[in-house]
Amino acid sequence: MDKVLVDRNELTDFIKSVFLALGTSPSDSEDCARILVAADARGIPSHGVARLWRYKNGIQKGLMLIDAVPRTLRETPMSLIIDAQGDLGMGLSRRTMDTVIDKASKVGAAFASIRDSNHFGIAGFYSEMAARKDMIGIAMTNTAALCVPTFGSEAMLGTNPIAFSVPASDGRMFTLDMATTTVTRGKIEVYEREGKSLPPGWAVNTKGQGTSDAARLLEDMLYARGGGLLPLGGEGESLGGHKGYGLAALVDIMTALTSGGVFGKSVMDSKETSARVCHFFGAIRLDLFRDPEDFKADMSRFLDELENGRKAEGQKRIYYAGLKEHESEARSWKTGVELSVKVAQALNDIGNELGVKLPSMQ
Amino acid sequence: MDKVLVDRNELTDFIKSVFLALGTSPSDSEDCARILVAADARGIPSHGVARLWRYKNGIQKGLMLIDAVPRTLRETPMSLIIDAQGDLGMGLSRRTMDTVIDKASKVGAAFASIRDSNHFGIAGFYSEMAARKDMIGIAMTNTAALCVPTFGSEAMLGTNPIAFSVPASDGRMFTLDMATTTVTRGKIEVYEREGKSLPPGWAVNTKGQGTSDAARLLEDMLYARGGGLLPLGGEGESLGGHKGYGLAALVDIMTALTSGGVFGKSVMDSKETSARVCHFFGAIRLDLFRDPEDFKADMSRFLDELENGRKAEGQKRIYYAGLKEHESEARSWKTGVELSVKVAQALNDIGNELGVKLPSMQ
Repeated sequence: MDKVLVDRNELTDFIKSVFLALGTSPSDSEDCARILVAADARGIPSHGVARLWRYKNGIQKGLMLIDAVPRTLRETPMSLIIDAQGDLGMGLSRRTMDTVIDKASKVGAAFASIRDSNHFGIAGFYSEMAARKDMIGIAMTNTAALCVPTFGSEAMLGTNPIAFSVPASDGRMFTLDMATTTVTRGKIEVYEREGKSLPPGWAVNTKGQGTSDAARLLEDMLYARGGGLLPLGGEGESLGGHKGYGLAALVDIMTALTSGGVFGKSVMDSKETSARVCHFFGAIRLDLFRDPEDFKADMSRFLDELENGRKAEGQKRIYYAGLKEHESEARSWKTGVELSVKVAQALNDIGNELGVKLPSMQ
Repeated sequence: MDKVLVDRNELTDFIKSVFLALGTSPSDSEDCARILVAADARGIPSHGVARLWRYKNGIQKGLMLIDAVPRTLRETPMSLIIDAQGDLGMGLSRRTMDTVIDKASKVGAAFASIRDSNHFGIAGFYSEMAARKDMIGIAMTNTAALCVPTFGSEAMLGTNPIAFSVPASDGRMFTLDMATTTVTRGKIEVYEREGKSLPPGWAVNTKGQGTSDAARLLEDMLYARGGGLLPLGGEGESLGGHKGYGLAALVDIMTALTSGGVFGKSVMDSKETSARVCHFFGAIRLDLFRDPEDFKADMSRFLDELENGRKAEGQKRIYYAGLKEHESEARSWKTGVELSVKVAQALNDIGNELGVKLPSMQ
């Protein structure tokens, strides 16, 4: 058995205590814990507590600042632009989304972007905050350059996720939270560990040609020799790779160009931790368009229609965006959050170092 | 030689005269002509004057109404929702985008959606209107259901294009204008005519399994037997097909759910012409975020960086979204708009029927 289960509240308390032990403020520690645990609870372990060591390293080496004083660069009734000045990212992002929602409540819609921030966890966490307030929620972030543009041979854009959340009438919610690359680096690492060949459409080598060699790719990416992940749609244009490339570029525009932050291939991870990055948040009130109850009733009909569509042979279900994650999240409250044994051991090591006791796991 | 060239202004005048001869108002005729010719000029002939017969049929059979009285369903300082009541689509869309830009000029950002409209041409035409006014421009439309959701076997969403336009400082512009399917039906028709097998990732058969048989697919789609186009990212989840499916669903949400229009698999073409559809338009002022001149200067640096990236072996250029189309459009003003001989003949037939003289072609 390579998986363990841990009570969600206890895991959240543990992560919060680790951030507190690192000197993070109570409010930020709480946000970091909630956001990281939400990723694991949704079945997105790549963005969950497995990243705790990066935050620990980042804070301890002074790359992620727990005492940064974010600076407002511009503010209007419907916008807010912030220079995070190296702030930890998650607490600031949560507070900024709260401000966006508050502004949208007053004027109808609002947007924010943040520059010089750090990894903010799962984008969908923020977009869903707005959806719970009868708004269309949007969140994006740029990331370290890992994605090779169509016809290129070097990484020039991040995996640049986009999240949109839209509420339905019965507590259900459509949440599209997607990297704009075909897969993320984490998936390549899994294939490397398992000694498997990469399928076509995932990555290119230093010559910009499709590669199946995961180990070589990861090394070339690490030393910035060229090659990298392919945009959604794969290599060249025949399967629409230029579309994924365009979406990735759009995320850099909405996050970094709107905030005057670092974009494109200049966004780079360091050995110790992740790159400084830029975020974008948006909220648009449903009642700009229609009565929110009518809108949400139609959303439920739409989601039902998709779920009830005729299945492909051998398939039992059609999912709408976010459904798998919400089902996983519901399970996490009942049966606990699933972690890999390896991640649980890493958490234990961090806990021991900082004098924080890991909760019991099954 | 299966291509001919025609002067852009003369072609626009011809198309305008055809719409006038069909009883369309001078203003709508002008818009229709400009928007259809822009598609051909940009190298997107699938959305250009080749569709003229559909409009002619639609108008003559009373499915596209030249005397519709669009009705405002909701209006706020930053939004406008319209029931087109079967209106022709293009003129109404152009006027609505003008209103969105005007509202955004006053309050910062604005959005509109339209239901019960008709095919509005290329989405990028509208998003670029906003970008020329120092705004981020957005346009979307749903379309007849042709796209099969991930793990499904029947078409439940349209090819649902998304367009975003963002200006740079030197007259350049980023315009991502993409169907959310891997390819559109037009591409399948080309493969069928040429007797070529479809590559994996484009379409599935009635069982929801990848198909290479273009003729069979088109017939199954025509008779709504099942099967259809795959979302961007292809079949299943391994290349990200669920992401393209999510984007396609998002377009239905922004266009049809916001306007109370027809969504999902209920959007169907008739034999005579295209389906009634819903549109979405948005404009967000750059100065909500930064000084527009600073923003556009950075945009130019970003586009330069992408163009100057290291090329894949055998590739001469990296394009940013919209660059190919803008280069094609610039050529069209100098050397004329390129049409296929077949399309030119079809235009000639329509001109003869309506007593409008086709311009000379080379």
